[in-house]
Amino acid sequence: MGRDLHPLSLHFVMFIPTIQGQTDDEQLDEWLGLAISRGIIGTYAQTELGHGTNLKNLETTATYDPKTEEFIINSPTITSTKWWPGALGKSSNYAIVVAQLYTQGVCRGPHPFIVQLRDLETHKPLKGIRVGDIGPKFGFNSSDNGFLLFDHYRIPRNHMLMRHSKVEKDGTFIAPKHAKLGYGTMVFVRSIMTKDQATQLACAACIATRYSAIRRQGEIKEGSGEVQILDYQTQQFRVFPQLARAFAFMFAAYEIRDLYMEVTEQLNHGNTDLLPEIHALSSGLKAIVTWECAQGIEQCRMACGGHGYSLASAFPEIYAFVVGGCTYEGENIVMLLQVARFLMKAAEEVRSGKARLAAICGYLGKADSAHSRLTTWDSYSDADIVHDFEHVARKQVFRAYDALKRHQRETSPEEAWNRASVELCKASRMHVRLYLVRNFLQKVATAPDASLRAPLTDLTRLYAFDMITACQGEFMKGGFMSETQIDAVKEGIYKCLERIRPNAVSLVDSWDFDDDELHSVLGRRDGNVYPALLEWAQNSQLNRTEVLPTFKKYLGPMMKDGRSKL
Amino acid sequence: MGRDLHPLSLHFVMFIPTIQGQTDDEQLDEWLGLAISRGIIGTYAQTELGHGTNLKNLETTATYDPKTEEFIINSPTITSTKWWPGALGKSSNYAIVVAQLYTQGVCRGPHPFIVQLRDLETHKPLKGIRVGDIGPKFGFNSSDNGFLLFDHYRIPRNHMLMRHSKVEKDGTFIAPKHAKLGYGTMVFVRSIMTKDQATQLACAACIATRYSAIRRQGEIKEGSGEVQILDYQTQQFRVFPQLARAFAFMFAAYEIRDLYMEVTEQLNHGNTDLLPEIHALSSGLKAIVTWECAQGIEQCRMACGGHGYSLASAFPEIYAFVVGGCTYEGENIVMLLQVARFLMKAAEEVRSGKARLAAICGYLGKADSAHSRLTTWDSYSDADIVHDFEHVARKQVFRAYDALKRHQRETSPEEAWNRASVELCKASRMHVRLYLVRNFLQKVATAPDASLRAPLTDLTRLYAFDMITACQGEFMKGGFMSETQIDAVKEGIYKCLERIRPNAVSLVDSWDFDDDELHSVLGRRDGNVYPALLEWAQNSQLNRTEVLPTFKKYLGPMMKDGRSKL
Repeated sequence: MGRDLHPLSLHFVMFIPTIQGQTDDEQLDEWLGLAISRGIIGTYAQTELGHGTNLKNLETTATYDPKTEEFIINSPTITSTKWWPGALGKSSNYAIVVAQLYTQGVCRGPHPFIVQLRDLETHKPLKGIRVGDIGPKFGFNSSDNGFLLFDHYRIPRNHMLMRHSKVEKDGTFIAPKHAKLGYGTMVFVRSIMTKDQATQLACAACIATRYSAIRRQGEIKEGSGEVQILDYQTQQFRVFPQLARAFAFMFAAYEIRDLYMEVTEQLNHGNTDLLPEIHALSSGLKAIVTWECAQGIEQCRMACGGHGYSLASAFPEIYAFVVGGCTYEGENIVMLLQVARFLMKAAEEVRSGKARLAAICGYLGKADSAHSRLTTWDSYSDADIVHDFEHVARKQVFRAYDALKRHQRETSPEEAWNRASVELCKASRMHVRLYLVRNFLQKVATAPDASLRAPLTDLTRLYAFDMITACQGEFMKGGFMSETQIDAVKEGIYKCLERIRPNAVSLVDSWDFDDDELHSVLGRRDGNVYPALLEWAQNSQLNRTEVLPTFKKYLGPMMKDGRSKL
Repeated sequence: MGRDLHPLSLHFVMFIPTIQGQTDDEQLDEWLGLAISRGIIGTYAQTELGHGTNLKNLETTATYDPKTEEFIINSPTITSTKWWPGALGKSSNYAIVVAQLYTQGVCRGPHPFIVQLRDLETHKPLKGIRVGDIGPKFGFNSSDNGFLLFDHYRIPRNHMLMRHSKVEKDGTFIAPKHAKLGYGTMVFVRSIMTKDQATQLACAACIATRYSAIRRQGEIKEGSGEVQILDYQTQQFRVFPQLARAFAFMFAAYEIRDLYMEVTEQLNHGNTDLLPEIHALSSGLKAIVTWECAQGIEQCRMACGGHGYSLASAFPEIYAFVVGGCTYEGENIVMLLQVARFLMKAAEEVRSGKARLAAICGYLGKADSAHSRLTTWDSYSDADIVHDFEHVARKQVFRAYDALKRHQRETSPEEAWNRASVELCKASRMHVRLYLVRNFLQKVATAPDASLRAPLTDLTRLYAFDMITACQGEFMKGGFMSETQIDAVKEGIYKCLERIRPNAVSLVDSWDFDDDELHSVLGRRDGNVYPALLEWAQNSQLNRTEVLPTFKKYLGPMMKDGRSKL
């Protein structure tokens, strides 16, 4: 639930897992106990000032010197400065450093090394190390994200993590047996991220919904008093889709975690069939969920008017935290293009008649239908909805595929990819949205408590209809949906808003956020918003003194001077 | 260019203009000189904790006591606390306070009073006044936005601003001659806001474009080195539309300022014909421009990856400043609904054959065409583009109108309005977007320097095409545009991106922002980004000491303890 990093977050999330996964047995004995007992604190230093996305061009070097049996870690340029690792600036005395391994005069690509940065007793940086905080950020300001520079800093040979690659005493490099590792971990991290992000969107939706039931402004019936702003259709249209998304994304997070378990089980039996598909799905989910959560949070914030702009609302903190997720753990556009790589392979297989598609992509091999089966919004079945999203996703995947092929006839494969990339991203988005809507419908349809299905079904409809109208052009292309059908979808939205209204507060209460977790004056469970806002304001740092020192120094003399002139 | 408020901002922007516009002659003599010489510092206190949008329900009271010839200003509830005024918390010693005027036992509605808050010499709050800072916000944190409570605080009768309404010594209330005043000022303030917002979007586009020309990441042609990220289609698609918007919005801001001058001139001759239309347009522009600027700034920020998240980029400060504009000076949804009121009147006139529409709304009276005249993107003329945007705006205005009429047959006018409100907002958006695209095309077509027309024309196309694809469904409805035509628009986008690429840096340089104004390490004119980032980081507060005091207190003992257990 936190919206920042603890000084030991990276130690537990990255440093220890890397030791567990990438050391040989001897190294494991040397480091794991020390790390677990918190005898040292470590972080993970990979990203550099000049390179994040393109890891193979990282510039930090680790050059093996067989004479002393040491690696010389060096930062040859300013752009090679390690940049961003959490807790690197001031807290950590160790780090896993990813550097280009040079041995016997040959570059062997990026490898991980365990490096001591600060003296264990004095905590001062060791000679050859320059380390510090990178300064304030949009969010995460309790975290000392750091920079790190090496000046020909020497570490023993056995500080290279040698589970996979090895460097022998004489400098001989031994390549790893398996080239592609770590996909599973990425899937896991992204499933956690999806859940965290969905939770924060839920917090935002909870705050906005509760406050909109407290806030009264304007009249709908003259003379009958001001109404709860949650009664305005425009307010419902801002807030309720976020509520629906929060549920949809949480269900997706649970599903992808289960899939991860399944894949891990399969991997243990040497079966890698599902891995590419799950990896693509988790990348795509990460991109869609982080961005839609961020957008949704801003809608919730603005739905609370001026008070949403105060830090008392918690929205600014929620937004800054969540929107960071669009960038870290894989920039979203890069993620979408990864998904597209996978989708283009699948499209190729379908076109060449060699399709061997697993469940999530099965729709790519299905035959097209001429029309949506929608008649009225309330008779539009789960199966029909999924059918229509499949149609639109399939169309876009093959539209991107055809664009790519067309460009490939005119230019190099790389430039063709670049020229098709906006269409490719769109294909990835539709693929992920299809997954999200299908999973949401399925989870609600099979909810163990049948009494929950009616209110949740309204949310699934709102979720699906909102997406359809947001990209209605895609649904209308080729006459797949008529204008009348689009009108039926819109009617469905307005009816769902009305139906969700009486359940809205109960729905957000169902998440059972503690006031301390929510950390929002506007979102208080007891609804006692206004006295609490006034109380919160008293704690403003500026209110510690009634008259600020600046009055004596500047304002007072300025005004006195002004008055004396009259 | 600033992204915060100066302690005297409200004094000059609200306090003095209110004195100029709302005092009688005697009051003007008493207060104007004092305010202009800065002998006192004032602000404008209208919004309360419980009421912003619905001014007529403000709760602060000003009750006239004929015995002492004083008003008693009082805050009867917590929700009546004045909240948000800039410089109220600590800087101002005076305020214009808007309160419900009670005289002879009757409420006369909200009126402005000039009220002393703090002692001139000691700056301490006067007896009966409770005033302070409202605490930290998303942005504007140099400003002491304040709260203010009155406990039966007495002011002389002549502290009510009496240019329009008056209260005589015996308590007789004299109503103003003209009920609707101040529309012109609102138009003016919103034209200034539009320009400020567009300027900040331009700053963001400038930073993102320059940095994208410096940043290299990944290869398009293998072996030929890493490319400037501005060469990626996805990056262009993120950043260039923001560049186009910045120009479009600036041109709109200039146009609305000129229209304001024209209207003011007409008002001086007693002609109020244009006022409602201009007022509606300025409200709509405020809503569209603030939101699209905010969205565009976030796209620019994310296009800069992790470095965009650092305060060094200036993006967080730009975003927090601009997105506030979606809420203050009229919440955006409320603004759009105001525009819709005007549009519904215009639609009513057209349907009843009584149309007397001025230029901006003239399109509502035009006959429908069956199809767009678009064939290829590069032969799509200004006139054709405007024609098509007019078609889509007109369709949506009448769609909303018909929905409103349909609901009116079923329920009360107020509830009918509520049920149609999402459609009404959509109509307002299309109306404003038509205005923006028409004005942008016109301004570029008539640019005095013909050599600028080619690069700017690419931007007008990108701007128009991007909007068309974003709401392609609206353009496809009724077969107005075919799928082939939509494909032509999409091709136009990709071609425009290619054509803008070589001019992009020059275009953002043309705004001639000073590095100090831009205030962004990423957006430096000299492009020397990486050394400057490293230097900027050195100034982080955390870097003032090499080892933080927390090491001795917590981290050191914890690690020592951890090591001793092994």
